[in-house]
Amino acid sequence: MRIAVFGTGTVGQALAARLDELGNEVTIGTRDVDASRARAAAGGSSAESFGAWLLGRPSIRLATYADAAATSEIVVNATSGQVALAALGSAGRENLVGKILIDISNPLDFSAGFPPSLFVKDTDSLGEQIQAAFPDTFVVKTLNTLAAELMVRPAQLASGQHTVFVSGNDAAAKRTVTGILKQFGHTDVIDLGDISTCRGTEMYLALWVRTMGALGAELFNIKVVRKEQHDSRLLAGLADLTSAALD
Amino acid sequence: MRIAVFGTGTVGQALAARLDELGNEVTIGTRDVDASRARAAAGGSSAESFGAWLLGRPSIRLATYADAAATSEIVVNATSGQVALAALGSAGRENLVGKILIDISNPLDFSAGFPPSLFVKDTDSLGEQIQAAFPDTFVVKTLNTLAAELMVRPAQLASGQHTVFVSGNDAAAKRTVTGILKQFGHTDVIDLGDISTCRGTEMYLALWVRTMGALGAELFNIKVVRKEQHDSRLLAGLADLTSAALD
Repeated sequence: MRIAVFGTGTVGQALAARLDELGNEVTIGTRDVDASRARAAAGGSSAESFGAWLLGRPSIRLATYADAAATSEIVVNATSGQVALAALGSAGRENLVGKILIDISNPLDFSAGFPPSLFVKDTDSLGEQIQAAFPDTFVVKTLNTLAAELMVRPAQLASGQHTVFVSGNDAAAKRTVTGILKQFGHTDVIDLGDISTCRGTEMYLALWVRTMGALGAELFNIKVVRKEQHDSRLLAGLADLTSAALD
Repeated sequence: MRIAVFGTGTVGQALAARLDELGNEVTIGTRDVDASRARAAAGGSSAESFGAWLLGRPSIRLATYADAAATSEIVVNATSGQVALAALGSAGRENLVGKILIDISNPLDFSAGFPPSLFVKDTDSLGEQIQAAFPDTFVVKTLNTLAAELMVRPAQLASGQHTVFVSGNDAAAKRTVTGILKQFGHTDVIDLGDISTCRGTEMYLALWVRTMGALGAELFNIKVVRKEQHDSRLLAGLADLTSAALD
Protein backbone atom coordinates (compact mmCIF):
# COMPACT_ATOMS: atom_id res chain seq x y z
CA MET A 1 0.00 0.00 0.00
CA ARG A 2 1.00 3.63 -0.36
CA ILE A 3 1.36 4.96 3.18
CA ALA A 4 2.25 8.45 4.39
CA VAL A 5 3.91 8.79 7.79
CA PHE A 6 3.65 12.24 9.36
CA GLY A 7 6.52 13.03 11.71
CA THR A 8 10.28 12.61 11.48
CA GLY A 9 10.91 11.72 15.13
CA THR A 10 11.55 8.37 16.76
CA VAL A 11 7.98 7.15 16.25
CA GLY A 12 7.79 8.35 12.65
CA GLN A 13 11.13 6.73 11.83
CA ALA A 14 10.17 3.42 13.42
CA LEU A 15 6.84 3.29 11.60
CA ALA A 16 8.26 4.37 8.25
CA ALA A 17 11.12 1.88 8.37
CA ARG A 18 8.89 -1.03 9.36
CA LEU A 19 6.20 -0.24 6.79
CA ASP A 20 8.90 0.08 4.13
CA GLU A 21 10.40 -3.25 5.17
CA LEU A 22 6.96 -4.85 4.83
CA GLY A 23 6.78 -3.80 1.20
CA ASN A 24 4.72 -0.63 1.35
CA GLU A 25 5.47 2.55 -0.60
CA VAL A 26 6.28 4.93 2.23
CA THR A 27 6.38 8.71 2.08
CA ILE A 28 7.34 10.66 5.17
CA GLY A 29 5.44 13.90 5.49
CA THR A 30 7.05 16.94 7.09
CA ARG A 31 6.50 20.68 7.29
CA ASP A 32 9.73 21.72 5.62
CA VAL A 33 11.43 19.11 3.46
CA ASP A 34 14.77 20.88 3.19
CA ALA A 35 14.93 21.64 6.92
CA SER A 36 14.13 18.03 7.81
CA ARG A 37 16.84 16.73 5.50
CA ALA A 38 19.36 19.15 6.99
CA ARG A 39 18.41 18.60 10.60
CA ALA A 40 21.26 17.54 12.88
CA ALA A 41 20.92 14.71 15.36
CA ALA A 42 18.61 15.79 18.16
CA GLY A 43 19.79 13.27 20.71
CA GLY A 44 17.24 11.14 22.55
CA SER A 45 17.21 7.50 21.55
CA SER A 46 18.03 8.33 17.95
CA ALA A 47 21.78 8.28 17.43
CA GLU A 48 21.86 9.66 13.91
CA SER A 49 20.29 12.74 12.38
CA PHE A 50 17.06 12.40 10.44
CA GLY A 51 18.92 13.33 7.26
CA ALA A 52 21.47 10.56 7.77
CA TRP A 53 18.73 8.12 8.70
CA LEU A 54 16.83 8.94 5.51
CA LEU A 55 19.92 8.66 3.30
CA GLY A 56 20.25 5.05 4.43
CA ARG A 57 16.70 4.27 3.29
CA PRO A 58 16.47 5.25 -0.38
CA SER A 59 13.07 3.63 -0.87
CA ILE A 60 11.46 6.06 1.60
CA ARG A 61 10.42 9.36 0.05
CA LEU A 62 10.31 12.67 1.93
CA ALA A 63 7.61 15.20 0.98
CA THR A 64 5.42 17.94 2.38
CA TYR A 65 2.41 16.89 4.44
CA ALA A 66 0.11 17.74 1.53
CA ASP A 67 2.15 15.87 -1.07
CA ALA A 68 2.59 12.83 1.18
CA ALA A 69 -1.15 12.67 1.95
CA ALA A 70 -2.25 13.27 -1.63
CA THR A 71 -0.14 10.42 -2.97
CA SER A 72 -1.00 7.87 -0.25
CA GLU A 73 -3.95 5.63 0.60
CA ILE A 74 -3.32 5.59 4.36
CA VAL A 75 -1.85 8.30 6.58
CA VAL A 76 -0.10 7.61 9.88
CA ASN A 77 0.00 10.52 12.31
CA ALA A 78 3.22 10.12 14.29
CA THR A 79 3.69 13.79 15.10
CA SER A 80 3.79 15.07 18.64
CA GLY A 81 0.30 15.62 20.03
CA GLN A 82 0.83 19.34 20.42
CA VAL A 83 1.22 19.85 16.66
CA ALA A 84 -0.96 17.00 15.37
CA LEU A 85 -3.95 19.11 14.34
CA ALA A 86 -1.74 21.72 12.70
CA ALA A 87 0.21 19.09 10.76
CA LEU A 88 -2.98 17.42 9.55
CA GLY A 89 -4.42 20.83 8.68
CA SER A 90 -1.34 21.52 6.51
CA ALA A 91 -2.03 18.29 4.68
CA GLY A 92 -5.38 19.65 3.55
CA ARG A 93 -8.76 18.09 4.24
CA GLU A 94 -9.19 17.25 0.56
CA ASN A 95 -6.08 15.07 0.67
CA LEU A 96 -7.44 13.07 3.60
CA VAL A 97 -11.03 12.54 2.45
CA GLY A 98 -12.06 8.89 2.44
CA LYS A 99 -8.69 7.75 3.74
CA ILE A 100 -7.70 5.89 6.87
CA LEU A 101 -5.77 8.00 9.36
CA ILE A 102 -3.87 5.94 11.91
CA ASP A 103 -3.41 8.28 14.87
CA ILE A 104 -0.55 7.40 17.22
CA SER A 105 -0.16 10.82 18.83
CA ASN A 106 -0.68 11.49 22.53
CA PRO A 107 -1.89 14.77 24.06
CA LEU A 108 1.17 15.14 26.26
CA ASP A 109 2.00 18.51 27.78
CA PHE A 110 5.59 18.77 29.02
CA SER A 111 5.38 22.50 29.79
CA ALA A 112 5.65 21.76 33.52
CA GLY A 113 8.34 19.12 33.04
CA PHE A 114 8.16 15.42 33.75
CA PRO A 115 5.82 13.65 34.24
CA PRO A 116 3.73 15.28 31.53
CA SER A 117 0.07 16.17 31.93
CA LEU A 118 -2.54 15.78 29.19
CA PHE A 119 -3.85 18.83 27.34
CA VAL A 120 -7.11 17.06 26.55
CA LYS A 121 -8.64 14.20 28.56
CA ASP A 122 -11.53 12.56 30.33
CA THR A 123 -14.53 14.07 28.49
CA ASP A 124 -12.69 14.53 25.20
CA SER A 125 -9.56 13.22 23.52
CA LEU A 126 -7.07 14.10 20.82
CA GLY A 127 -8.38 11.26 18.68
CA GLU A 128 -11.88 12.71 18.83
CA GLN A 129 -10.61 16.21 18.07
CA ILE A 130 -8.85 14.90 14.98
CA GLN A 131 -11.93 12.95 13.88
CA ALA A 132 -14.08 16.05 14.39
CA ALA A 133 -11.67 18.19 12.35
CA PHE A 134 -11.62 15.63 9.51
CA PRO A 135 -15.14 14.18 9.44
CA ASP A 136 -14.66 12.47 6.07
CA THR A 137 -11.51 10.65 7.19
CA PHE A 138 -11.56 7.30 9.01
CA VAL A 139 -9.52 7.94 12.15
CA VAL A 140 -8.24 4.83 13.96
CA LYS A 141 -6.37 5.43 17.20
CA THR A 142 -3.85 2.77 18.04
CA LEU A 143 -0.27 2.06 19.16
CA ASN A 144 -0.19 5.14 21.40
CA THR A 145 0.21 2.93 24.49
CA LEU A 146 3.72 1.67 23.87
CA ALA A 147 7.26 2.68 22.95
CA ALA A 148 8.18 3.08 19.29
CA GLU A 149 10.30 -0.04 19.00
CA LEU A 150 7.52 -2.16 20.51
CA MET A 151 4.89 -0.61 18.24
CA VAL A 152 6.53 -2.06 15.18
CA ARG A 153 8.40 -5.08 16.59
CA PRO A 154 6.23 -6.41 19.42
CA ALA A 155 7.70 -9.90 19.12
CA GLN A 156 10.92 -8.72 20.77
CA LEU A 157 9.03 -8.78 24.07
CA ALA A 158 7.47 -12.03 25.31
CA SER A 159 6.98 -13.23 21.71
CA GLY A 160 4.41 -10.50 21.21
CA GLN A 161 2.14 -11.82 23.96
CA HIS A 162 0.82 -8.43 25.02
CA THR A 163 -2.03 -6.16 23.99
CA VAL A 164 -2.71 -3.21 21.71
CA PHE A 165 -6.01 -1.40 21.33
CA VAL A 166 -7.89 0.14 18.41
CA SER A 167 -10.57 2.84 18.64
CA GLY A 168 -12.49 4.17 15.68
CA ASN A 169 -15.93 4.77 14.21
CA ASP A 170 -15.49 2.66 11.08
CA ALA A 171 -15.34 -1.13 11.36
CA ALA A 172 -13.72 -1.65 7.95
CA ALA A 173 -10.98 0.87 8.75
CA LYS A 174 -10.30 -0.89 12.05
CA ARG A 175 -10.05 -4.24 10.25
CA THR A 176 -7.49 -2.78 7.81
CA VAL A 177 -5.46 -1.29 10.65
CA THR A 178 -5.67 -4.52 12.64
CA GLY A 179 -4.22 -6.29 9.61
CA ILE A 180 -1.23 -3.93 9.64
CA LEU A 181 -0.79 -4.44 13.39
CA LYS A 182 -0.71 -8.21 12.86
CA GLN A 183 1.89 -7.76 10.12
CA PHE A 184 3.99 -5.91 12.69
CA GLY A 185 3.64 -8.95 14.95
CA HIS A 186 0.88 -7.97 17.33
CA THR A 187 -1.05 -10.98 18.55
CA ASP A 188 -3.74 -9.41 20.74
CA VAL A 189 -5.68 -6.45 19.32
CA ILE A 190 -8.67 -5.31 21.39
CA ASP A 191 -11.29 -3.23 19.59
CA LEU A 192 -12.48 -0.85 22.30
CA GLY A 193 -15.26 0.67 20.19
CA ASP A 194 -15.79 4.09 18.62
CA ILE A 195 -13.21 6.86 18.54
CA SER A 196 -14.29 8.21 21.95
CA THR A 197 -12.88 5.08 23.58
CA CYS A 198 -9.38 6.40 22.91
CA ARG A 199 -9.93 8.56 25.98
CA GLY A 200 -9.00 5.35 27.75
CA THR A 201 -5.75 4.70 25.90
CA GLU A 202 -4.70 8.36 25.98
CA MET A 203 -5.30 8.59 29.74
CA TYR A 204 -3.40 5.32 30.23
CA LEU A 205 -0.28 7.33 29.37
CA ALA A 206 -0.41 8.67 32.93
CA LEU A 207 0.19 5.10 34.13
CA TRP A 208 2.67 4.37 31.34
CA VAL A 209 5.05 7.18 32.30
CA ARG A 210 5.01 6.16 35.97
CA THR A 211 5.48 2.49 35.18
CA MET A 212 8.42 3.43 32.96
CA GLY A 213 9.83 5.41 35.89
CA ALA A 214 9.41 2.47 38.27
CA LEU A 215 10.91 -0.09 35.88
CA GLY A 216 13.61 2.21 34.53
CA ALA A 217 12.82 0.84 31.09
CA GLU A 218 10.62 1.59 28.11
CA LEU A 219 10.47 -1.91 26.68
CA PHE A 220 7.31 -3.00 28.47
CA ASN A 221 3.68 -3.26 27.58
CA ILE A 222 0.48 -4.39 29.24
CA LYS A 223 -1.28 -7.62 28.47
CA VAL A 224 -4.97 -7.73 29.19
CA VAL A 225 -5.26 -11.02 31.06
CA ARG A 226 -8.79 -12.44 30.90
CA LYS A 227 -10.72 -15.67 31.02
CA GLU A 228 -11.16 -17.56 27.80
CA GLN A 229 -14.92 -17.47 28.10
CA HIS A 230 -16.62 -14.28 29.12
CA ASP A 231 -20.03 -13.85 30.55
CA SER A 232 -21.80 -10.55 30.19
CA ARG A 233 -21.46 -9.00 33.56
CA LEU A 234 -21.21 -5.39 32.65
CA LEU A 235 -23.58 -4.32 35.36
CA ALA A 236 -21.81 -6.37 37.98
CA GLY A 237 -18.52 -4.81 36.96
CA LEU A 238 -20.04 -1.39 37.16
CA ALA A 239 -21.36 -2.07 40.63
CA ASP A 240 -17.90 -3.15 41.74
CA LEU A 241 -16.30 -0.04 40.39
CA THR A 242 -18.62 2.35 42.12
CA SER A 243 -17.90 0.49 45.34
CA ALA A 244 -21.66 0.54 45.92
CA ALA A 245 -21.25 1.86 49.44
CA LEU A 246 -22.44 5.42 49.55
CA ASP A 247 -22.45 5.63 53.29
CA MET B 1 -3.90 -7.43 62.67
CA ARG B 2 -6.84 -5.26 63.61
CA ILE B 3 -8.13 -3.79 60.35
CA ALA B 4 -11.01 -1.38 59.71
CA VAL B 5 -12.74 -1.52 56.34
CA PHE B 6 -14.70 1.61 55.43
CA GLY B 7 -17.60 0.92 53.09
CA THR B 8 -20.35 -1.68 53.04
CA GLY B 9 -20.55 -2.12 49.25
CA THR B 10 -19.16 -4.84 47.02
CA VAL B 11 -15.55 -3.77 47.52
CA GLY B 12 -15.89 -3.34 51.27
CA GLN B 13 -17.56 -6.73 51.62
CA ALA B 14 -14.90 -8.47 49.51
CA LEU B 15 -12.05 -6.90 51.47
CA ALA B 16 -13.62 -7.50 54.88
CA ALA B 17 -14.45 -11.14 54.15
CA ARG B 18 -10.98 -11.91 52.80
CA LEU B 19 -9.14 -10.14 55.62
CA ASP B 20 -11.34 -11.96 58.14
CA GLU B 21 -10.63 -15.30 56.44
CA LEU B 22 -6.89 -14.55 56.68
CA GLY B 23 -7.16 -14.25 60.45
CA ASN B 24 -7.38 -10.51 60.99
CA GLU B 25 -9.76 -8.80 63.41
CA VAL B 26 -12.00 -6.94 61.00
CA THR B 27 -14.33 -4.05 61.80
CA ILE B 28 -16.44 -2.56 59.04
CA GLY B 29 -16.86 1.18 59.42
CA THR B 30 -20.06 2.86 58.32
CA ARG B 31 -21.86 6.16 58.80
CA ASP B 32 -24.96 4.75 60.47
CA VAL B 33 -24.63 1.31 62.02
CA ASP B 34 -28.36 0.66 62.44
CA ALA B 35 -29.17 1.81 58.90
CA SER B 36 -26.43 -0.39 57.42
CA ARG B 37 -27.67 -3.44 59.32
CA ALA B 38 -31.25 -2.81 58.18
CA ARG B 39 -30.41 -2.03 54.57
CA ALA B 40 -32.20 -4.20 52.00
CA ALA B 41 -30.40 -5.76 49.07
CA ALA B 42 -29.34 -3.04 46.66
CA GLY B 43 -28.96 -5.28 43.62
CA GLY B 44 -25.79 -5.06 41.60
CA SER B 45 -23.50 -8.05 41.89
CA SER B 46 -24.39 -8.54 45.53
CA ALA B 47 -27.33 -10.91 45.82
CA GLU B 48 -28.01 -10.49 49.52
CA SER B 49 -28.50 -7.41 51.67
CA PHE B 50 -25.60 -6.08 53.69
CA GLY B 51 -27.44 -7.03 56.86
CA ALA B 52 -27.84 -10.63 55.74
CA TRP B 53 -24.25 -10.73 54.53
CA LEU B 54 -23.04 -9.52 57.92
CA LEU B 55 -25.20 -11.97 59.87
CA GLY B 56 -23.38 -14.79 58.10
CA ARG B 57 -20.00 -13.47 59.28
CA PRO B 58 -20.20 -13.24 63.07
CA SER B 59 -16.47 -12.55 63.45
CA ILE B 60 -16.78 -9.25 61.55
CA ARG B 61 -17.82 -6.32 63.69
CA LEU B 62 -19.82 -3.32 62.44
CA ALA B 63 -19.10 0.10 63.96
CA THR B 64 -19.07 3.79 63.19
CA TYR B 65 -16.15 5.13 61.15
CA ALA B 66 -14.64 6.67 64.29
CA ASP B 67 -15.02 3.52 66.41
CA ALA B 68 -13.68 1.29 63.62
CA ALA B 69 -10.64 3.51 63.05
CA ALA B 70 -9.91 4.01 66.76
CA THR B 71 -9.81 0.28 67.44
CA SER B 72 -7.78 -0.72 64.36
CA GLU B 73 -4.13 -0.58 63.30
CA ILE B 74 -4.84 -0.31 59.58
CA VAL B 75 -7.76 1.31 57.78
CA VAL B 76 -8.95 0.30 54.31
CA ASN B 77 -10.92 2.95 52.43
CA ALA B 78 -13.38 1.06 50.22
CA THR B 79 -15.99 3.78 50.05
CA SER B 80 -17.04 5.36 46.78
CA GLY B 81 -14.65 8.10 45.71
CA GLN B 82 -17.32 10.79 45.96
CA VAL B 83 -17.70 10.28 49.71
CA ALA B 84 -14.19 9.13 50.62
CA LEU B 85 -12.98 12.38 52.17
CA ALA B 86 -16.22 12.82 54.11
CA ALA B 87 -16.10 9.27 55.44
CA LEU B 88 -12.48 9.65 56.53
CA GLY B 89 -13.30 13.01 58.06
CA SER B 90 -16.04 11.36 60.13
CA ALA B 91 -13.47 8.91 61.42
CA GLY B 92 -11.52 11.78 62.95
CA ARG B 93 -7.92 12.68 62.20
CA GLU B 94 -6.87 11.65 65.70
CA ASN B 95 -8.06 8.11 65.02
CA LEU B 96 -5.97 7.87 61.87
CA VAL B 97 -2.69 9.38 63.12
CA GLY B 98 0.31 7.14 62.54
CA LYS B 99 -1.79 4.46 60.86
CA ILE B 100 -1.67 2.96 57.39
CA LEU B 101 -4.63 3.90 55.21
CA ILE B 102 -5.07 1.60 52.24
CA ASP B 103 -7.00 3.68 49.72
CA ILE B 104 -8.91 1.70 47.09
CA SER B 105 -11.35 4.41 46.07
CA ASN B 106 -11.54 5.90 42.58
CA PRO B 107 -12.62 9.46 41.73
CA LEU B 108 -15.42 8.31 39.43
CA ASP B 109 -18.18 10.72 38.50
CA PHE B 110 -21.28 8.99 37.11
CA SER B 111 -23.38 12.18 37.02
CA ALA B 112 -23.38 12.10 33.21
CA GLY B 113 -23.93 8.33 33.07
CA PHE B 114 -21.63 5.67 31.73
CA PRO B 115 -18.73 5.77 31.07
CA PRO B 116 -17.86 7.81 34.15
CA SER B 117 -15.50 10.77 34.11
CA LEU B 118 -13.01 11.53 36.90
CA PHE B 119 -13.67 14.37 39.32
CA VAL B 120 -9.96 14.80 39.98
CA LYS B 121 -7.15 13.82 37.59
CA ASP B 122 -3.95 14.57 35.74
CA THR B 123 -2.35 17.22 37.98
CA ASP B 124 -3.91 15.91 41.20
CA SER B 125 -5.53 12.71 42.44
CA LEU B 126 -7.89 11.46 45.10
CA GLY B 127 -5.04 9.63 46.79
CA GLU B 128 -3.09 12.87 47.09
CA GLN B 129 -6.14 14.74 48.38
CA ILE B 130 -6.59 12.12 51.08
CA GLN B 131 -2.90 12.24 51.99
CA ALA B 132 -3.06 16.06 52.16
CA ALA B 133 -6.13 15.93 54.40
CA PHE B 134 -4.48 13.40 56.74
CA PRO B 135 -0.80 14.33 56.75
CA ASP B 136 0.03 12.12 59.74
CA THR B 137 -1.45 9.01 58.14
CA PHE B 138 0.45 6.74 55.76
CA VAL B 139 -1.74 6.58 52.67
CA VAL B 140 -1.02 3.70 50.27
CA LYS B 141 -3.07 3.62 47.09
CA THR B 142 -3.57 0.16 45.65
CA LEU B 143 -6.08 -2.34 44.23
CA ASN B 144 -8.10 0.44 42.56
CA THR B 145 -7.29 -1.00 39.12
CA LEU B 146 -9.32 -4.20 39.30
CA ALA B 147 -12.70 -5.66 40.18
CA ALA B 148 -13.45 -6.53 43.80
CA GLU B 149 -13.28 -10.30 43.40
CA LEU B 150 -9.87 -10.03 41.72
CA MET B 151 -8.57 -7.64 44.36
CA VAL B 152 -8.84 -10.31 47.04
CA ARG B 153 -8.62 -13.54 45.01
CA PRO B 154 -6.26 -12.79 42.11
CA ALA B 155 -5.34 -16.46 41.72
CA GLN B 156 -8.73 -17.16 40.12
CA LEU B 157 -7.36 -15.50 36.96
CA ALA B 158 -4.24 -16.90 35.28
CA SER B 159 -2.94 -18.18 38.63
CA GLY B 160 -2.47 -14.59 39.73
CA GLN B 161 -0.02 -13.82 36.94
CA HIS B 162 -1.04 -10.18 36.57
CA THR B 163 -0.06 -6.88 38.14
CA VAL B 164 -1.13 -4.56 40.94
CA PHE B 165 0.46 -1.24 41.82
CA VAL B 166 1.22 0.59 45.07
CA SER B 167 1.74 4.33 45.47
CA GLY B 168 2.67 6.02 48.73
CA ASN B 169 5.15 8.27 50.48
CA ASP B 170 6.23 5.81 53.16
CA ALA B 171 8.36 2.80 52.20
CA ALA B 172 7.56 0.83 55.37
CA ALA B 173 3.83 1.31 54.86
CA LYS B 174 4.13 0.10 51.27
CA ARG B 175 6.03 -2.98 52.47
CA THR B 176 3.27 -3.80 54.95
CA VAL B 177 0.57 -3.35 52.30
CA THR B 178 2.55 -5.41 49.80
CA GLY B 179 2.63 -8.19 52.39
CA ILE B 180 -1.17 -8.11 52.60
CA LEU B 181 -1.44 -8.12 48.79
CA LYS B 182 0.77 -11.21 48.65
CA GLN B 183 -1.42 -12.89 51.27
CA PHE B 184 -4.36 -12.23 48.95
CA GLY B 185 -2.42 -14.03 46.22
CA HIS B 186 -0.92 -11.19 44.21
CA THR B 187 2.36 -12.19 42.59
CA ASP B 188 3.45 -8.97 40.87
CA VAL B 189 3.32 -5.74 42.89
CA ILE B 190 4.91 -2.71 41.23
CA ASP B 191 5.87 0.17 43.52
CA LEU B 192 5.25 3.23 41.35
CA GLY B 193 6.69 5.71 43.84
CA ASP B 194 5.18 8.42 46.00
CA ILE B 195 1.46 9.03 46.42
CA SER B 196 1.34 11.34 43.37
CA THR B 197 1.98 8.33 41.14
CA CYS B 198 -1.57 7.16 41.84
CA ARG B 199 -2.61 9.71 39.22
CA GLY B 200 -1.54 6.95 36.87
CA THR B 201 -3.65 4.18 38.38
CA GLU B 202 -6.67 6.45 38.88
CA MET B 203 -6.54 7.63 35.26
CA TYR B 204 -6.15 4.03 34.09
CA LEU B 205 -9.79 3.60 35.12
CA ALA B 206 -10.68 5.34 31.84
CA LEU B 207 -9.12 2.40 30.01
CA TRP B 208 -10.51 -0.15 32.49
CA VAL B 209 -14.14 0.80 31.90
CA ARG B 210 -13.73 0.67 28.12
CA THR B 211 -11.87 -2.63 28.21
CA MET B 212 -14.65 -4.01 30.39
CA GLY B 213 -17.13 -2.80 27.78
CA ALA B 214 -15.18 -4.44 24.95
CA LEU B 215 -14.72 -7.76 26.77
CA GLY B 216 -18.17 -7.80 28.35
CA ALA B 217 -16.53 -9.00 31.53
CA GLU B 218 -15.06 -7.64 34.71
CA LEU B 219 -12.74 -10.53 35.52
CA PHE B 220 -9.68 -9.19 33.75
CA ASN B 221 -6.56 -7.38 34.79
CA ILE B 222 -3.42 -6.07 33.15
CA LYS B 223 -0.05 -7.71 33.44
CA VAL B 224 2.94 -5.45 32.93
CA VAL B 225 5.02 -7.54 30.53
CA ARG B 226 8.69 -6.59 30.65
CA LYS B 227 12.15 -7.96 30.09
CA GLU B 228 13.79 -9.76 32.97
CA GLN B 229 16.71 -7.39 32.94
CA HIS B 230 16.13 -3.71 32.59
CA ASP B 231 18.51 -1.10 31.46
CA SER B 232 17.99 2.47 32.52
CA ARG B 233 16.67 4.11 29.43
CA LEU B 234 14.39 6.68 30.93
CA LEU B 235 15.52 9.38 28.58
CA ALA B 236 15.16 7.17 25.55
CA GLY B 237 11.65 6.29 26.63
CA LEU B 238 10.81 9.90 27.12
CA ALA B 239 12.08 10.76 23.68
CA ASP B 240 9.87 8.07 22.17
CA LEU B 241 6.83 9.32 23.98
CA THR B 242 7.15 12.87 22.84
CA SER B 243 7.48 11.53 19.31
CA ALA B 244 10.44 13.87 18.93
CA ALA B 245 9.06 15.29 15.71
CA LEU B 246 7.92 18.79 16.32
CA ASP B 247 7.55 19.63 12.67
